[in-house]
Amino acid sequence: MGAVTTPKQDRSRLTRARLLESAVTCLAERGWSGSTVSVVAEHAGVSRGAAQHHFPTREDLFTAAVEYVAEERSAALRRLPRPADTHEAVATLVGLFTGPLFRAALHLWVAASNEPHLGDRVTALEARIGRETHRMAVELLGADESRPGVRETVQGLLDMARGLGLANLLTDDAARRERVVTQWAAILRSQLTDSSQPADSPQPAD
Amino acid sequence: MGAVTTPKQDRSRLTRARLLESAVTCLAERGWSGSTVSVVAEHAGVSRGAAQHHFPTREDLFTAAVEYVAEERSAALRRLPRPADTHEAVATLVGLFTGPLFRAALHLWVAASNEPHLGDRVTALEARIGRETHRMAVELLGADESRPGVRETVQGLLDMARGLGLANLLTDDAARRERVVTQWAAILRSQLTDSSQPADSPQPAD
Repeated sequence: MGAVTTPKQDRSRLTRARLLESAVTCLAERGWSGSTVSVVAEHAGVSRGAAQHHFPTREDLFTAAVEYVAEERSAALRRLPRPADTHEAVATLVGLFTGPLFRAALHLWVAASNEPHLGDRVTALEARIGRETHRMAVELLGADESRPGVRETVQGLLDMARGLGLANLLTDDAARRERVVTQWAAILRSQLTDSSQPADSPQPAD
Repeated sequence: MGAVTTPKQDRSRLTRARLLESAVTCLAERGWSGSTVSVVAEHAGVSRGAAQHHFPTREDLFTAAVEYVAEERSAALRRLPRPADTHEAVATLVGLFTGPLFRAALHLWVAASNEPHLGDRVTALEARIGRETHRMAVELLGADESRPGVRETVQGLLDMARGLGLANLLTDDAARRERVVTQWAAILRSQLTDSSQPADSPQPAD
């Protein structure tokens, strides 16, 4: 029967997806200490037993959830039309760091920094998501990484986006963020496109 | 007697400082959930009663601690000689976000995002520290904020520094960070000093 699925398999896949999405929502809204498997099962409208059938441990559930939502987000981004200009590309990248997925991931990273049993899994997950985000950034910006310095320029932009996400944690930082995005998009445009000012020629110290 | 203090006042001030420094260390190493007043008192070698005399609540202790250490850090920075070049200025600023104070502040911000009784105090504290850090950045970079765009350039740099701090949470990111700092210091040098390429003239969309 190959790829054809039974109604039971479909239901199981749907339950799994509901649990993963609920896990990210709970993590973003209540943090690590407020997010247990029971809380997520209730949010998803699934029995605790069914949740544990899919995800034997709390760590399984939350690392799978952040990875699943990151993959869904990448797929959605790939379906978008190419951005019209550098500003739109930078705004899209920064937007990746201001939604519930970033909040959820932030809670998971911070919990992992103090909980050794989470550390290795979350570090590996962070590396995978980081590589994929960098790949998306290069594509959205149309950046040519064969030019020296361009890779670090893009990395610094993603660090800035991560910092803007953190600045948005406690207060709505949208107005300031938009001004920073506009300014940094202008800087990046000149760095990534103007060959008269190559990114690979740092000048002597002031 | 004016500013002259008694030995008892000196001891009290010393106890307070020890508690504040221990609170930041505990928060950085164990996170919010692992940092109680008792844990901090033990780390500081102070009785729990003495700790509660100085700081009636857990929130009092940790918000005061992050503020105290941030002020100590600002004072230390003011005593440093002026940086030799933009690279040194950027490296110093980024260094503010990779030590124990940043880790402690991160745990406090993240806890505050899910605990309403902490939220307002931490938001006000974050705003004060943010203003002071911006002021230091302008001074270290010798940036002229009367030029349009310079303020947002400096803000974006501090967002980048915050993002680099977050990237350092789970793994030692020093080698990558140094490459990003070198590249962005070169970009910023041209942005902040080259009047032939004013920061205030974003070009038309690509």
